[in-house]
Amino acid sequence: MKRTHLFIVGVYLLSSCRAEEGLNFPTYDGKDRVVSLSEKNFKQVLKKYDLLCLYYHEPVSSDKIAQKQFQLKEIVLELVAQVLEHKAIGFVMVDAKKEAKLAKKLGFDEEGSLYILKGDRTIEFDGEFAADVLVEFLLDLIEDPVEILSSKLEVQAFERIEDQIKLIGFFKSEDSEYYKAFEEAAEHFQPYIKFFATFDKGVAKKLSLKMNEVDFYEPFMDEPIAIPNKPYTEEELVEFVKEHQRPTLRRLRPEEMFETWEDDLNGIHIVAFAEKSDPDGYEFLEILKQVARDNTDNPDLSILWIDPDDFPLLVAYWEKTFKIDLFRPQIGVVNVTDADSVWMEIPDDDDLPTAEELEDWIEDVLSGKINTEDDDNEDEGEDDDDDDDDDNSDEEDDSDDDNDE
Amino acid sequence: MKRTHLFIVGVYLLSSCRAEEGLNFPTYDGKDRVVSLSEKNFKQVLKKYDLLCLYYHEPVSSDKIAQKQFQLKEIVLELVAQVLEHKAIGFVMVDAKKEAKLAKKLGFDEEGSLYILKGDRTIEFDGEFAADVLVEFLLDLIEDPVEILSSKLEVQAFERIEDQIKLIGFFKSEDSEYYKAFEEAAEHFQPYIKFFATFDKGVAKKLSLKMNEVDFYEPFMDEPIAIPNKPYTEEELVEFVKEHQRPTLRRLRPEEMFETWEDDLNGIHIVAFAEKSDPDGYEFLEILKQVARDNTDNPDLSILWIDPDDFPLLVAYWEKTFKIDLFRPQIGVVNVTDADSVWMEIPDDDDLPTAEELEDWIEDVLSGKINTEDDDNEDEGEDDDDDDDDDNSDEEDDSDDDNDE
Repeated sequence: MKRTHLFIVGVYLLSSCRAEEGLNFPTYDGKDRVVSLSEKNFKQVLKKYDLLCLYYHEPVSSDKIAQKQFQLKEIVLELVAQVLEHKAIGFVMVDAKKEAKLAKKLGFDEEGSLYILKGDRTIEFDGEFAADVLVEFLLDLIEDPVEILSSKLEVQAFERIEDQIKLIGFFKSEDSEYYKAFEEAAEHFQPYIKFFATFDKGVAKKLSLKMNEVDFYEPFMDEPIAIPNKPYTEEELVEFVKEHQRPTLRRLRPEEMFETWEDDLNGIHIVAFAEKSDPDGYEFLEILKQVARDNTDNPDLSILWIDPDDFPLLVAYWEKTFKIDLFRPQIGVVNVTDADSVWMEIPDDDDLPTAEELEDWIEDVLSGKINTEDDDNEDEGEDDDDDDDDDNSDEEDDSDDDNDE
Repeated sequence: MKRTHLFIVGVYLLSSCRAEEGLNFPTYDGKDRVVSLSEKNFKQVLKKYDLLCLYYHEPVSSDKIAQKQFQLKEIVLELVAQVLEHKAIGFVMVDAKKEAKLAKKLGFDEEGSLYILKGDRTIEFDGEFAADVLVEFLLDLIEDPVEILSSKLEVQAFERIEDQIKLIGFFKSEDSEYYKAFEEAAEHFQPYIKFFATFDKGVAKKLSLKMNEVDFYEPFMDEPIAIPNKPYTEEELVEFVKEHQRPTLRRLRPEEMFETWEDDLNGIHIVAFAEKSDPDGYEFLEILKQVARDNTDNPDLSILWIDPDDFPLLVAYWEKTFKIDLFRPQIGVVNVTDADSVWMEIPDDDDLPTAEELEDWIEDVLSGKINTEDDDNEDEGEDDDDDDDDDNSDEEDDSDDDNDE
């Protein structure tokens, strides 16, 4: 970690000249907290922490850009390590070449990945590599895997969660063997999927839960599925969740965004942009939910909802890449290999498509009638109407493609 | 901006080795887009953009830490400028010493502040100095200042916004002079306060609005206040909002956090921590809302609600500074000068205080019976039970205080 000394920058800034106290953002203090892991120190390091966060990286190359990117990741990790210093979380780097044997033993296969060891579990972090996202992820991971509901207001809170998968079980007590199986199952999915339980008859009645029953809620669906054949073993619960993990409508979340994006269907995503806090966006999302509810049994359909508010830094990139205006709702098909896309024509945001119109459009996408390839000839002619060819360093490859034609 | 060349780092990282496209976070490309403003180029620069973003800074000192912090702000601004390159937003630096005359002309008074010029308005950004927060702020600022509601679903979206001040007016049409006054008033508060309007009788009826009436909604209150003496001039609307701008319960938001923190009452804030997405936090927030509704006429009461999920990087800092556990709901009094604090004893998060208990506690705070000074002698003894004196560079001053005793 010596290199970071030359590079003592904080990703977040201290507001240094304020007279008031109470909101001091941390700046990286320059101390080395992230250590290099080797077979030699592995056991000792592991013993020291409840949670071990490992950045598995390719050997640092002589390429300057690659070096810089590596240093930036180091700084993000150092800042996270500093912020979480008192939480018994360790941070280490694993060099893929030098520590190939150790990496193999740990089951690491994707260079550039961040893995977290918790007990005998390995969790992969596949989200936005930013300090705030990572801190929240790790804090969620040291909480209890199951949240207990014990009052009416807590049931209300539970019911309000609609944009992610949730499970809830009713058990006799914390000592119940079935609760223990449920808790073990929860650990497999922590912190991505939320597990709730109750030991309270009133709460169970409100949620129509029978003793030892676990209900599975798909995002945006009103009615849960009762997992069949209760009581369940840990394995049965895990298997059920894995089978139902891809919902009809899901929200892209910073903490798992890359994993979600990789989970495409036949190389494409149906992507809907809608800003929930905006009236038009809210309306569009309600229509999407209706479509999802009507088509929840279609295994070929998974719509990815992106709220631009969750990704301010990507808004301009998406507008440019997809050639759309994100101040208004949009739905389209994106090819995940090259980000080629086609978008539904929505002439006026005061006249959004109805659920039926959306379903027709989606049917055309699923049948291949609407696809990202058909319009490619037209597209090429339009490519030049932007004067922004050099504004985004991530797009260097695009110009190469153009030259091939 | 030459210095940034030596420092080509992106605050956010490119995920470089993925085979898929569509989620590329921008990295700073090293181009200089932020220029130094002087009296000479001022008019020319101003003419070029719809929005001009000015960082008003003290002269760069020879102090290394100050230099580094300045460079970091530069990089954040450069990245924001890059991301928003096609949005007609300009970014400049104003040196407080070299350009004292220009700064005076522009009415800048607080060094280290970020000002935005939009038409003849000057808006101060007083939020978290991070690229994502700043990008979202600027995007909100180039949207229309008034959002039009035209359907039932949009009314639902409007009604769901409860954690911030909102206004809604009913007007004949976009050409109405009263709508125009409303629009002008909205510009005074954009993007901090949301203004809505409708030209639709059905929507107006649903919201019990008469023609040319504007209703003001305090955060977390069910019933709005109809602004008296309609129709209103721009000035009357602005004055009313300014008078009612400090609500009984408000949420701390990254885009205005420092301004909110400075708006204390007699040097203190009543601060409540509650994670809305957590059942206990949700329950506590509901109780707080109850208290706020019962006491909305008390001008001495303003509770600041902080959702730890909005500030992952501050959680550990707050836990240490306030000596509390943020995995559970908390309410306390914080002295904003030194961050000294006392917290209500909540023995069990399954047994949260009732609204009445909270009101009694708040009454004791407002009467001075509970305050941050009384326990200071006990506190000193406890100060040493943490082994974490050196983990936070922001706290250097604390150790000096300890030495004085």
